[in-house]
Amino acid sequence: MIVLGIDPGLATLGWGVIEAQPGRQKLVDYGCILTTPDQRLPERLKQIGEDMQALLQKYQPDEIAFEELFFAKNVTTAFTVGAARGVSIAACAAYTDQLYEYTPMQVKQAIVGWGKADKKQMQLMVKMLLHMEEIAKPDDAADAIAIALTHAATGPAKKQFLMK
Amino acid sequence: MIVLGIDPGLATLGWGVIEAQPGRQKLVDYGCILTTPDQRLPERLKQIGEDMQALLQKYQPDEIAFEELFFAKNVTTAFTVGAARGVSIAACAAYTDQLYEYTPMQVKQAIVGWGKADKKQMQLMVKMLLHMEEIAKPDDAADAIAIALTHAATGPAKKQFLMK
Repeated sequence: MIVLGIDPGLATLGWGVIEAQPGRQKLVDYGCILTTPDQRLPERLKQIGEDMQALLQKYQPDEIAFEELFFAKNVTTAFTVGAARGVSIAACAAYTDQLYEYTPMQVKQAIVGWGKADKKQMQLMVKMLLHMEEIAKPDDAADAIAIALTHAATGPAKKQFLMK
Repeated sequence: MIVLGIDPGLATLGWGVIEAQPGRQKLVDYGCILTTPDQRLPERLKQIGEDMQALLQKYQPDEIAFEELFFAKNVTTAFTVGAARGVSIAACAAYTDQLYEYTPMQVKQAIVGWGKADKKQMQLMVKMLLHMEEIAKPDDAADAIAIALTHAATGPAKKQFLMK
């Protein structure tokens, strides 16, 4: 089963693809969709939508897991981060209904075994679990791989559909 | 020139289409894209994207004006409202780069001549300006028509591109 993990964001949207087999997870690829503040919002969102479609066509994931957004500095920031998340969700929803979502704490719990683990611990664990030579960069891509791993490691009864 | 006005929202996205001619605006059509909380978010966003595409194909607007979001009860609400706005902006951006945005106060100023006019005053003025027999329903559709009218009434130097 191919799992795509997504850490949504407007300037940086991290993504990671793993092949989940019983007892062994294999890293397929990872990266980021980047947009810059010198682009207007419509152009940035259009690019995120198109790049997401290209990702889905290239890797044909069976299931997709998002990191749940729960924090923003303020309502204005939440509108634009929410916009980027919305566009990436809509692109995925046009491709499959197998969309899931986990909180950062659930991801840390699943990867490190401790919901308050720090970022460094989690990145080292992701590197080890996937037999990578280096820690994935940037952080957003590493987070996306961790989300995909979390989904793969979560039992069927506990997999969380993306609801709202 | 055909102008599409949009009042973005997740449960109700209002839209209004006018034909703007020098000295006279003509109402073409208006309505709402509706989604319900019993649908999962991905399904709702997918529907908004598809319905927006259908609107754009049907009315072929030359320019599109959005109402600027500036208020949400909290960050969580801002994420989901921002998601709906983001999906509708991305659909429009794939169709044209002629996307504009106005605050509710600018809309009231343009339609009624007073930035703090109430909703009823604005709806009556929209009805009068477009020679409509009744006030447009629901409110979100009436708001969207008002946004399209505002854009049409705004001089070239003051038209506001949707930036962020």
